[in-house]
Amino acid sequence: MAEKTVSSTGLRGQSAGTTALCTVGKSGAGLTYRGFDIKELAEKARFEEVAYLLLKGKLPNRAELDAYITKLKGMRGLPAPLKAVLEQIPKNAHPMDVMRTGASMLGNLETEESFDEQQDVSDRLLAVLPSIICYWYRYSHDGVRIETETDDESVGAHFLHLLRGEAPSELHARVMNVSLILYAEHEFNASTFTARVCASTLSDMHSCVTGAIGSLRGPLHGGANEAAMDMIENWTSPEEAEREIMGMLERKEKIMGFGHAIYRESDPRNAIIKQWSQKLAEDVGDTVLYPVSERVEEVMWREKKLFCNADFFHASAYYFMDIPTKLFTPIFVCSRVTGWCAHVFEQRANNRIIRPSADYIGPEKSEWVPIEERD
Amino acid sequence: MAEKTVSSTGLRGQSAGTTALCTVGKSGAGLTYRGFDIKELAEKARFEEVAYLLLKGKLPNRAELDAYITKLKGMRGLPAPLKAVLEQIPKNAHPMDVMRTGASMLGNLETEESFDEQQDVSDRLLAVLPSIICYWYRYSHDGVRIETETDDESVGAHFLHLLRGEAPSELHARVMNVSLILYAEHEFNASTFTARVCASTLSDMHSCVTGAIGSLRGPLHGGANEAAMDMIENWTSPEEAEREIMGMLERKEKIMGFGHAIYRESDPRNAIIKQWSQKLAEDVGDTVLYPVSERVEEVMWREKKLFCNADFFHASAYYFMDIPTKLFTPIFVCSRVTGWCAHVFEQRANNRIIRPSADYIGPEKSEWVPIEERD
Repeated sequence: MAEKTVSSTGLRGQSAGTTALCTVGKSGAGLTYRGFDIKELAEKARFEEVAYLLLKGKLPNRAELDAYITKLKGMRGLPAPLKAVLEQIPKNAHPMDVMRTGASMLGNLETEESFDEQQDVSDRLLAVLPSIICYWYRYSHDGVRIETETDDESVGAHFLHLLRGEAPSELHARVMNVSLILYAEHEFNASTFTARVCASTLSDMHSCVTGAIGSLRGPLHGGANEAAMDMIENWTSPEEAEREIMGMLERKEKIMGFGHAIYRESDPRNAIIKQWSQKLAEDVGDTVLYPVSERVEEVMWREKKLFCNADFFHASAYYFMDIPTKLFTPIFVCSRVTGWCAHVFEQRANNRIIRPSADYIGPEKSEWVPIEERD
Repeated sequence: MAEKTVSSTGLRGQSAGTTALCTVGKSGAGLTYRGFDIKELAEKARFEEVAYLLLKGKLPNRAELDAYITKLKGMRGLPAPLKAVLEQIPKNAHPMDVMRTGASMLGNLETEESFDEQQDVSDRLLAVLPSIICYWYRYSHDGVRIETETDDESVGAHFLHLLRGEAPSELHARVMNVSLILYAEHEFNASTFTARVCASTLSDMHSCVTGAIGSLRGPLHGGANEAAMDMIENWTSPEEAEREIMGMLERKEKIMGFGHAIYRESDPRNAIIKQWSQKLAEDVGDTVLYPVSERVEEVMWREKKLFCNADFFHASAYYFMDIPTKLFTPIFVCSRVTGWCAHVFEQRANNRIIRPSADYIGPEKSEWVPIEERD
């Protein structure tokens, strides 16, 4: 329909606003949340601490963190009409469509009437999104109506508990904690930017988050860890993996989980999740998937100088925790909602409606022809 | 939360891509869809013809238009699970939240599995959105489950028929036709840009439209005709209107329905809808609301050199047709979905993920402090 132009810009390198939340790829490698290095956060913090940092602007002290965890624990229940809606969604639905619909439906029931409510609305979303996806998943796949209010101390443990019907091991809770920290925030990526464009019309938080979920659903954005899993899961040895990858490279097929729009040398999240994937492989006695993943990493670097991004070793890590592949991107949502909401706060605090221009490539003037005379 | 900067840009004047769909404000006044002047379209075209023009790239001949109208008529039914969802949404919900949730739910039931389906998915949305809003409205407000499949020839008549339970007069069908044409497309406004950002991740059509609805919901964007109505409906004479407007100007209050981000001299849609509002006023024997609206227009021009935009006389026009104020923005959705979908097609045909940069205004480096030592 549109004439092809040599390149569409995608606004690459153009500033669309200010943020105090995140730096990506400064001096080629780093990732910081409010100035804190991602490596330090992943090693020392709880995800709820990071959420607090992003949403409230500083690290909580002990009393604040305890109160915040208690607050989130109290917000895990699903209103009856939301359960009824989730029960209407078929088993074969795309789980991101479920997340998008659940977030949107919540907006009908608990509408953000004023921006004064933005902190509570965001905390509620953070607490309840795991309930939304797991309630639908267990109902549609297992035919059970689960109780979504548990006393798990963390968002990650809550998610695994609902998914499996029992509290997770300490190792699994720990890996979920790290994973949620790594995915929490990433500057003006497409889903976050969607949330900010929506926020710039002064729309409500549920609209912003619903829109962001829709953008994260796209295979160029949130779907990469699922695509990586689909690729590696059928390979039975590093040798087979290498053969297949070489064939894919020769056929110029896209290999998901490698390279990045912003990072040039490496993705700082990769080394972190890779180390946890290795621990999980040892824990389950894996002798296939982790070696396969490592070989793919080696070959991609050797052949193309492409590095793993955050998504690649997330695939094996989630797999070792028995998480169904189709729930990988919904977990991303459960984490990134913190970044989305924090960006909405920023947009609202210093707003101008985001309304770019376009280069017009259509006809200058079209002549109206009466319908009976048209070809 | 964010430091205030002198101005945030909102990407004003920066190109975010190419389009062959629309020009806005060329030489200060015009609006064209694929090169056709809006004045000519509003006078001569059917809305379904304009939808065809936007979505398929050319004006249809007689056979094509007849087939298209027949196709749309056959797509007005609601799947049972979607009805069940709409019945869960309370009467006091924001109607745009209903639209957003309805569009999102449809994506679970009729998922766009491939971009080859984009034309059919768009036509389906165009046909079914009036059914979604009216089914919910009549169920929640009147307690009835309406049949949404009617044999009305146009989208506008279908909407009015569902809302009232009977086919509209020719005049009302004609005004709805013009109104839907005027609102169908407007280049890179915030909701359309939301749809394009979402499309740029290669996400599905329902995600793009759901996100766009969320952005249109914002009071800086789609809510202006409702805000104008809320303002003018209580004034009982032009004199009272003038007094009130002068007071609002003195208190520097925002007056909705005036001025525009792009147009400098006038909004070409205003003269068109104003003339139809006047016809409707004569039809219902109005001696208050239309004179009040005209006086507001005069005062705003005299005092501020501000002109009516498309929204201002839409308020009285819809009011004369007995449309509840809270359904004004949902009608906008029923029209603009054509522009949104056409922009998604363009984005997909020449895609690069839309991922701008941000100006970082946060701390350079933050020092981790163990939780027991924090203030």
